[in-house]
Amino acid sequence: MDLIQAAVASRTRSLALLGASGSVGSTTLRYLRQLDRVSGPVADREKARIELNAVSVHRSVKLLRELIVEFSDIKHAALSDADVYRSEVDGLKADFPSVRFYGGAEGVVELVRETQADTVLTAVVGAAGIDATVAAVQGGKKIALANKETLVTAGPAIQYEAERAAKKGLAVSFLPVDSEHNAAFQLLEGLHRSRLSRLILTASGGPFRDRTADEIRTVSRDEVLNHPTWKMGPKISVDSAGMINKGLEIIEAHFLFDLAYDQLDVRIHRNSYVHAMVKTSDGGMILAASPPDMIFPVAHALHYPEAVPMQHVADDECARWPALQFEAVDPAKYPGFSLCMQAGRRGGTAPAILNAANEVAVAIFLDGGIPFYRIPELVDDALQNLPVEDGRELGLFQEADRRTREYLMLKHAERSAR
Amino acid sequence: MDLIQAAVASRTRSLALLGASGSVGSTTLRYLRQLDRVSGPVADREKARIELNAVSVHRSVKLLRELIVEFSDIKHAALSDADVYRSEVDGLKADFPSVRFYGGAEGVVELVRETQADTVLTAVVGAAGIDATVAAVQGGKKIALANKETLVTAGPAIQYEAERAAKKGLAVSFLPVDSEHNAAFQLLEGLHRSRLSRLILTASGGPFRDRTADEIRTVSRDEVLNHPTWKMGPKISVDSAGMINKGLEIIEAHFLFDLAYDQLDVRIHRNSYVHAMVKTSDGGMILAASPPDMIFPVAHALHYPEAVPMQHVADDECARWPALQFEAVDPAKYPGFSLCMQAGRRGGTAPAILNAANEVAVAIFLDGGIPFYRIPELVDDALQNLPVEDGRELGLFQEADRRTREYLMLKHAERSAR
Repeated sequence: MDLIQAAVASRTRSLALLGASGSVGSTTLRYLRQLDRVSGPVADREKARIELNAVSVHRSVKLLRELIVEFSDIKHAALSDADVYRSEVDGLKADFPSVRFYGGAEGVVELVRETQADTVLTAVVGAAGIDATVAAVQGGKKIALANKETLVTAGPAIQYEAERAAKKGLAVSFLPVDSEHNAAFQLLEGLHRSRLSRLILTASGGPFRDRTADEIRTVSRDEVLNHPTWKMGPKISVDSAGMINKGLEIIEAHFLFDLAYDQLDVRIHRNSYVHAMVKTSDGGMILAASPPDMIFPVAHALHYPEAVPMQHVADDECARWPALQFEAVDPAKYPGFSLCMQAGRRGGTAPAILNAANEVAVAIFLDGGIPFYRIPELVDDALQNLPVEDGRELGLFQEADRRTREYLMLKHAERSAR
Repeated sequence: MDLIQAAVASRTRSLALLGASGSVGSTTLRYLRQLDRVSGPVADREKARIELNAVSVHRSVKLLRELIVEFSDIKHAALSDADVYRSEVDGLKADFPSVRFYGGAEGVVELVRETQADTVLTAVVGAAGIDATVAAVQGGKKIALANKETLVTAGPAIQYEAERAAKKGLAVSFLPVDSEHNAAFQLLEGLHRSRLSRLILTASGGPFRDRTADEIRTVSRDEVLNHPTWKMGPKISVDSAGMINKGLEIIEAHFLFDLAYDQLDVRIHRNSYVHAMVKTSDGGMILAASPPDMIFPVAHALHYPEAVPMQHVADDECARWPALQFEAVDPAKYPGFSLCMQAGRRGGTAPAILNAANEVAVAIFLDGGIPFYRIPELVDDALQNLPVEDGRELGLFQEADRRTREYLMLKHAERSAR
């Protein structure tokens, strides 16, 4: 099942923003602020307006307080860190009596169930986005998906939930916020499927695209976090340096657009202006481009199928863009990318194992516990040693996720203890 | 009225090719030959097959004879040069008794009326394509349009004829074969019109893109004919050097896609890989690209909405493409382009006057009669001195065309006589 279901998508009027303190979250807030400044008559501003009905942060109480003051429509607010929630909730309730507060991962799910918003934007990082996404599907929401782990970990279960919701007559649609998938959606939207030869996602190649496979093995944490074109959070920057992020995106595209892995491909494109390309079966290419600013896919996902004239975007005059070029990917430089393709093709819980192992390995790397080249090795270890199962029940994928984390943490603890 | 009418378009099974000896004509023949070599089971070859039912050439009797021998489906054949027809028709009839022959411009129109082909590809150069196109519209054919003068000269009349045909229940659709318009069609096809901010056609900038406006004034005939990326006939090469071709294409796009001139724009793109771009109202760009080979738009126009896997195309791996870059157009260097925009915005018979004046001026230039900079001057002269009229009857535009040619030929004769 193609998760997009563009036919039932309508533009967002009321939004629940999960993960407001992250990179996509703050871009979304920037977009919402900009909508209030849409020029032209009041009618146009009203037409463009999106109410922020609900918001979650992990533990940034200060930001949460500021947002509640700034966006007076907020009725629901969550702190997904349960400890921070417990210590802050009384003060928040006292200061903002008209807002309902939620705490912990379960609190975020409850917020999704309670919000009046028509759209849930899941900008939380990691597998934590899954339960919230499932709740949004069950609630018949439009899902502006910025959490790639949801589909990577539990793609078959999400498709299953979406099918069940559609059978109940709920208008569920996924609009991707990730720049590559958002661009891919724009390309695939009007294309006769018989004309699709291949969907190509672009990759910047990360900060090590000009180094050899050997040189990449020993790069430092600071080098890894210094991405050439995108400003992103640390987890995604690490994934990007090893191109595991692109492998995860291929798996996500497989579920989002219902495409076979043979129809999916990657090219390196250094400036990150072109985000996705479609190769048509008669040999042409259609490219979707915009300056490397997440505000473009955010705007598209929220306002689709309508479009709001942008007032404060980065330079969009193509005559001032850098030259656009594409390169093949050298698999020897990016072992993590190859692991993603293998896990994707295997299917079942293999992508869940891959994703959980990667999350653990990246956390250990960021903590200084392992060198860069060990990340794909740990992922490979988990894929080699843990059983892969098939099915469509969410629990199956969450269990694979849990078991993988346990396996690698234990292994790392033993190794550290030696 | 949008002339594309994609909803009623179906893939070509039987073709009438007008202008087989020209550049687009020979590319079309190359494509038809290639279809016979589509690999895979016989069923695939049958599925891809297009019968060549009718063909016209101007005066290349040798080519016409070869084609009749090579393409055994040909039942109708025309020589649009009436004199050549008269001297050759007896021999042709004797040698090919199963083929019906037609002569002169009227003969081509009659061929269009008689052919069993579902599609007419109009690859004739100049205003001669108009009557044949009108006959194809009246016959309910699909029109693979490679003659840009048709819409430039008689856009309102062609729209009027298409509306009348549609009212009669005829399935008329125009599929553009010009690389820019074909690319534009692919981009606009799936786009919600509310998301369209601007359609941008690319221009190579011609052989003089790096010269100053002053240097361009005195370029030689040979320099003009030496186009940097496309191999084309002499008329189009001259148009391209002065970017009048791009102005004509803008006017054509106006009629083809029913777009206002404010929604149409041009950027210079030197390698001619990107043919058209759509700027969306939220600031993104969608680009349609293919190597600079007319076989791509020919294949698309004939097989749309199906697609045939191409076997023998030029390199379509984007990692081997040159860097793609775009530049603004300097209007001072291309006075002919500005004249096109003015005539297009004026509407009525102004584009017909522009096009006829340009055809006359280019012919005189190719004949050595005037220097390059005089071409736009003659066009401007005609636009300044001939009356512009409004209407939708074909005769009005043909009369403007005729009167313009007469005016400029007379003027040139007087000047030469002095």
